Amino acid sequence: MYKLTHAELLEQRLTNEQALAKGSSNERHPVSLLLHNIRSLYNVGSIFRTADAGLAQKLLLCGYTPHPPRKEIEKTALGAVDSVPWEYYTHTIDAIHALKQQRIRVMALELTSSSRSFASLTKADFPLCLIAGNEITGVEDEILRECDGALQIPMYGVKHSLNVSVATGIALFEAVRLWKMCE
Amino acid sequence: MYKLTHAELLEQRLTNEQALAKGSSNERHPVSLLLHNIRSLYNVGSIFRTADAGLAQKLLLCGYTPHPPRKEIEKTALGAVDSVPWEYYTHTIDAIHALKQQRIRVMALELTSSSRSFASLTKADFPLCLIAGNEITGVEDEILRECDGALQIPMYGVKHSLNVSVATGIALFEAVRLWKMCE
Repeated sequence: MYKLTHAELLEQRLTNEQALAKGSSNERHPVSLLLHNIRSLYNVGSIFRTADAGLAQKLLLCGYTPHPPRKEIEKTALGAVDSVPWEYYTHTIDAIHALKQQRIRVMALELTSSSRSFASLTKADFPLCLIAGNEITGVEDEILRECDGALQIPMYGVKHSLNVSVATGIALFEAVRLWKMCE
Repeated sequence: MYKLTHAELLEQRLTNEQALAKGSSNERHPVSLLLHNIRSLYNVGSIFRTADAGLAQKLLLCGYTPHPPRKEIEKTALGAVDSVPWEYYTHTIDAIHALKQQRIRVMALELTSSSRSFASLTKADFPLCLIAGNEITGVEDEILRECDGALQIPMYGVKHSLNVSVATGIALFEAVRLWKMCE
C-alpha cells in the first residue's frame, strides 16, 4: 500500500470546467447546501471544499454569510470557489422560496421537535437542499417554519453540536451515499 | 417544528463524568481517532468536539499534533477536552503498536493504492482506529506500512482532499452508523 502520487490523483479528478459543466447538464448530485448567516470565513471556505468533493448541486450563501471574492475564503477553499456553482441571497427566505419553486425539498440541519435522522433519506427526499445555520444560533424557528423538515446528526456525547463545516460534511456525504443507492 | 430549547437538549445529554465513565465500562463506540502530525490547533479542537459527539473510544494525539492544555484547542473544542478520553504519543509508530497490542484494527484515512470505501466497514473491522494525517502531507508511506489498511472518502470533484476535521467527522460518523448496524 502506498499513498497515491499527485499524478495518479489528477487522473481521477475533474477540471474546473468539467465540474461546472456538470451543473448545467445536471450530472452533479441533487443535493444543494444553503448557508444561513454563517459568520466564519474559514467555515465558508471549508464548506466550498466539501461541496466540491461531494459534487453538491450548488452552494447558496445567504444573509450575512461572507461570499467570494474574499482572500480568507479562497485560502481555506484551496481553489474550490472556482469549481462549485454558488449564488448569494441577501435574505435566506428568498433563497428558500426560489428552491421551492424549483421543487427542491428544503431541510434544515438542526435539532428540532421533529427532526429525522440524517441517515433516513429516501428517493422521495431528492432533489434536496440542506440548510446549515449560524455557528451559535443555528437555524431559528423563523427559518424552520419555511422548511419542509429537519435532519439531525445524533449527538452521543456531552455537547449539543458539531462545528458547522464538520456537520455539513457529514450530512452531505451521507445524502450523496444514499442518493447513489437510489439511482 | 421548533428548535429544541437548551433545557430540552440537556435532558438528552451525558455529563462529562458519565461520558468518561463510559470509556472504562466500554460503552463508548469502538472507534478511536489518531491524529498524526496535525498542525492546526483549531482542527484539533474541532476534532475533540467531533469525538465527543460521535462518542469515539479515545483520541490519540501524536507527533507534533498539539494537545491540551492549550487555550486555542479549548476554545474550538467548546469543552469537549473534558469529555473525551485522550492520550499523547511523541511517536505515531508507538501509538500504532500500542493499538495493535490491544487488537485494535488500524486504518489510515488516505487515498492509497489499496484504499477501501469509508462506507464498506463490517463487524470484522471493529474495534477500529482511524488515522488522520497532516493537513498538507496526509499519512505518509512510512506510517501506512504499519497500518492494517486504508479507507477513502470518495472525491467526486476537482480537489483531492477535504479539511482534515471534516474528513474525520465524515469517517467517524459513518463508522459509528455501521457499527450500530452490527450490534
